[in-house]
Amino acid sequence: MAQVLYDFTAEPGNNELTVREGETVTITNQGVGGGWIEAQNSRGEVGLVPEDYIEVREWLGVFNVFLTSNSKQAKSATNGKDPWSVWNQDTTGGSSNNWAAQPEGTITGKSAAADPWGSTAQSHPQAYQGPAEEDEWDDEWDDVKSNSESGDGGAIQRGGATGSSMKISLNKFPGFSKSGPELFLLCKQPPKGKEKITIYMGEVGPVWSYPEAQLDCVVADPKKGTKMYGLKSYIEYHVIPNTTNRPVNHRYKHFDWLYERLLDKFGSAIPIPSLPDKQVTGRFEEEFIKMRMERLQGWMTRMCRHPVVSNSDVFQLFLTYKDEKDWKTGKRKAEKDEDVGVMIFSSIEAEAPDLDPIEVEQKCDQFSRFTKAMDDGVKDLLTVGQEHWKRCTGPLPKEYQRIGKAFQNLSSVFTSSGYQGEATLTDAMTSAGKTYEEIAQMVAEQPRKDLHFLMENNNEYKGLLGCFPDTIGVHKAAIEKVKEGDRLVAASKITPQDKVTMAKRVSTMSYALQAEMNHFHSNRIYDYNRVMQLYLEEQVKFYETVRTVVQTTLYKETFSHSQKTQF
Amino acid sequence: MAQVLYDFTAEPGNNELTVREGETVTITNQGVGGGWIEAQNSRGEVGLVPEDYIEVREWLGVFNVFLTSNSKQAKSATNGKDPWSVWNQDTTGGSSNNWAAQPEGTITGKSAAADPWGSTAQSHPQAYQGPAEEDEWDDEWDDVKSNSESGDGGAIQRGGATGSSMKISLNKFPGFSKSGPELFLLCKQPPKGKEKITIYMGEVGPVWSYPEAQLDCVVADPKKGTKMYGLKSYIEYHVIPNTTNRPVNHRYKHFDWLYERLLDKFGSAIPIPSLPDKQVTGRFEEEFIKMRMERLQGWMTRMCRHPVVSNSDVFQLFLTYKDEKDWKTGKRKAEKDEDVGVMIFSSIEAEAPDLDPIEVEQKCDQFSRFTKAMDDGVKDLLTVGQEHWKRCTGPLPKEYQRIGKAFQNLSSVFTSSGYQGEATLTDAMTSAGKTYEEIAQMVAEQPRKDLHFLMENNNEYKGLLGCFPDTIGVHKAAIEKVKEGDRLVAASKITPQDKVTMAKRVSTMSYALQAEMNHFHSNRIYDYNRVMQLYLEEQVKFYETVRTVVQTTLYKETFSHSQKTQF
Repeated sequence: MAQVLYDFTAEPGNNELTVREGETVTITNQGVGGGWIEAQNSRGEVGLVPEDYIEVREWLGVFNVFLTSNSKQAKSATNGKDPWSVWNQDTTGGSSNNWAAQPEGTITGKSAAADPWGSTAQSHPQAYQGPAEEDEWDDEWDDVKSNSESGDGGAIQRGGATGSSMKISLNKFPGFSKSGPELFLLCKQPPKGKEKITIYMGEVGPVWSYPEAQLDCVVADPKKGTKMYGLKSYIEYHVIPNTTNRPVNHRYKHFDWLYERLLDKFGSAIPIPSLPDKQVTGRFEEEFIKMRMERLQGWMTRMCRHPVVSNSDVFQLFLTYKDEKDWKTGKRKAEKDEDVGVMIFSSIEAEAPDLDPIEVEQKCDQFSRFTKAMDDGVKDLLTVGQEHWKRCTGPLPKEYQRIGKAFQNLSSVFTSSGYQGEATLTDAMTSAGKTYEEIAQMVAEQPRKDLHFLMENNNEYKGLLGCFPDTIGVHKAAIEKVKEGDRLVAASKITPQDKVTMAKRVSTMSYALQAEMNHFHSNRIYDYNRVMQLYLEEQVKFYETVRTVVQTTLYKETFSHSQKTQF
Repeated sequence: MAQVLYDFTAEPGNNELTVREGETVTITNQGVGGGWIEAQNSRGEVGLVPEDYIEVREWLGVFNVFLTSNSKQAKSATNGKDPWSVWNQDTTGGSSNNWAAQPEGTITGKSAAADPWGSTAQSHPQAYQGPAEEDEWDDEWDDVKSNSESGDGGAIQRGGATGSSMKISLNKFPGFSKSGPELFLLCKQPPKGKEKITIYMGEVGPVWSYPEAQLDCVVADPKKGTKMYGLKSYIEYHVIPNTTNRPVNHRYKHFDWLYERLLDKFGSAIPIPSLPDKQVTGRFEEEFIKMRMERLQGWMTRMCRHPVVSNSDVFQLFLTYKDEKDWKTGKRKAEKDEDVGVMIFSSIEAEAPDLDPIEVEQKCDQFSRFTKAMDDGVKDLLTVGQEHWKRCTGPLPKEYQRIGKAFQNLSSVFTSSGYQGEATLTDAMTSAGKTYEEIAQMVAEQPRKDLHFLMENNNEYKGLLGCFPDTIGVHKAAIEKVKEGDRLVAASKITPQDKVTMAKRVSTMSYALQAEMNHFHSNRIYDYNRVMQLYLEEQVKFYETVRTVVQTTLYKETFSHSQKTQF
């Protein structure tokens, strides 16, 4: 028996149960996973209810330990704490009462994903120089409503932006949507006739099947649109894929919709990085739009580069829809896609021998350690870079400017001496003064030319790494489940055949994780090579420019080399 | 009638009067100037007593206004306040009671001169990085005593280091030693047969007579000596003039003695910059010795460059004494020299028509304004430079170091990936990391290569400019005196002929000031040209070196230019 803490309205076709605050329900299945439980109301109706809408009094079922571990994980992520800490915790014991008692603690999955590392060094300073342009973004959300009101094709946006924010939060956790890992591990047989995602053995180990030509796209031409007689405004972008070269229009909310779909569909196997933070701000609207576009471009490029993501129907729809009707039809279809969560693994075929569960666990731990270590390194670089950014745009150029002014002031005093031959010195000093003012400007502008890209790259990787605990968590949970195999067979919870199937399927999951890690490594080496090269190249240019400027002053004005003037 | 506030012991041969605290004396002449008054004790003995050793109750005499102005000037200088402020004050009225009431306020002239601009930006940070090496310097002073005790030739060190500190302070104020400007303005006739100091009209106006070959010297080979069985140590330098190329030995206290002599003799006409601060400190003894030597060298070079100073007997003695006996004889002679204070003007002959007192005043004011403005400019540059020094040796290299470490850390995480082809990235990142650690060191070391000389030069000029208020003050006082000419004649205090003589002599003083200013300007242009050129040259080298280092990393390690690895 359990008490309902908040109103929850079921969405049709989702096997959900509408409940009201104060109502008493009976828990029929706590092992659903993903923050959902199955409950029965007093009228005998059975359906899914968000776990934290209900005050659970007792724990039952064989998957308790495993679920509790998941809940803790999800909770620590949603609270914005270090998601890695879950690996340092004892994964047994605990209760979900904390969840039920703290419903306010579960902020939307979106926000949590946007800053999973806490608020420190979450972005470089350029992005935080002014007040948030709330109006513009509020509008993005208002807009969703007004679209709904105007009857947006009646599409059932399952877990989409129009649902309750709580539901979004629950659905947004990869691996914790309505399908726990056991759903895949124990499902009777993989659905037939689906598109297969194949994993090959490459030189580096398991790899995804890469397309011949790499998909790419350009996000460009931000245009401000207005509606409601100009009262509300929004920005629309052209997204131009290299396959069709034909621009399609998208607004931020469309990107957000795409993100939701990708997270739902691939999040258990592939870390789907958050969209650029909605709260990105800029000193000027132009700068803000540019920054947001640059980050949307970065996000799209990363998605394009992923062979599984880029090949998906929903991603292709986003890039190549023909018209409004095509878009709406595709949208509805994508939202109805049931092949989401851990079931993505059922589409994956690894052309390699099954792995021993112990080996799977080793791989999993190895990736976990690597991503954690890299995350520390990236955060460190971001912190240092942010401080350097501040110094280079703040006190340092101010100091060069003051040096420049001091030279010029002294020069102007000297000019007043009335002493003949003064001009040789004062011209040179004034020129040197101006040079240091120039240097001040160069120093202040430099970070945008080099450090910016280093920071953006690391910021992107920070976001990406922030998804790994969840992705790895799905595997970790599956491994725990397989480990329990003998016990479950002994307790007649599963058949010996189930145990064999589970081991086979966890092997597939491990190949998927390895393919994804190899994809990650390959991209990482490419990205860091590119950004380090760019950084060093721009640094060379900077030092070269400053050198030239100083040298020009030195020789243009020719500080007197002569001996002291005798009379 | 006046009350004696403190014990004062007369030195023989100086026309002084020994007085005891609480004794009552009669003021017989308050117009002596330079902080001295003539008093008669109860036994009828008459002699000079330091003005602020006595509580004066009444003011008498025609020079009161003028003396008061001097006292205020001297006081503001000795209190370490802005000596320029005297020019903004009303020079009439006031009383010297403040002086008498605040004898503690008169610190030694040396200290005041060492930091006449207050404690801010008094030197660049290199000089203030560690605790003062008190022992070494205490020894320098102890040493003086032990020399005296061992009967150092029985030389009467008039106003020297062995005298009372109060007496030093009084004597050390140029123009305020026992001879006020009126001593020269009204002296019956200039002493005959003295060496003449000639002022010519050069292209730039009045100039000193410069020697054909410029005197120069090298201060080198600091050697540590010990005495008292090694309990006390001192540093002895070789001073090698370009005239003889023969080194003579000198310790700091000898330089100090020379400074005292030059100040006494020329201080009214020529700003004699203080010696490098006795309190100069360094992190290591070696650094400290090097720094002090460098500054002694700078001071000696400036003295050598001055045609009047370098040509003087005392300066020549210092540079070229043959043996201990020669040195001691010369020392005694120099200490007995009575041609000091304002009487230096009696040796000066200007080969130019007498100036109108109004023109003299204009020149004086012009120089006063210029030196004040330059002093502001120099102080500003020193402040900015000091901050820049701190940044360049503190937070900035620390930041480059952290960037370097962050690159290397990330690189070492990447190395742990086990992914093949990782080395292309990690080698390059490690190399970049090391490069930024190198840059950190370059940044930290750079100020010693360029900013150091800019700072030292400005620091020297700050010291030099700090002497101008006193030097200009002598002229200002003389001008005031001449302005009173008519009134004094009317009151039969002086004869009409005295008035004519005064005007003629103030004209000589003005020529001397102009010659000195032209000397200052000429040297200033030379020094600033040299130091600015050096600064810019070293800056060019710095930026060039950093550019090269970054570029080498960029091309040595060749960050992968290749397309993303496909599998």
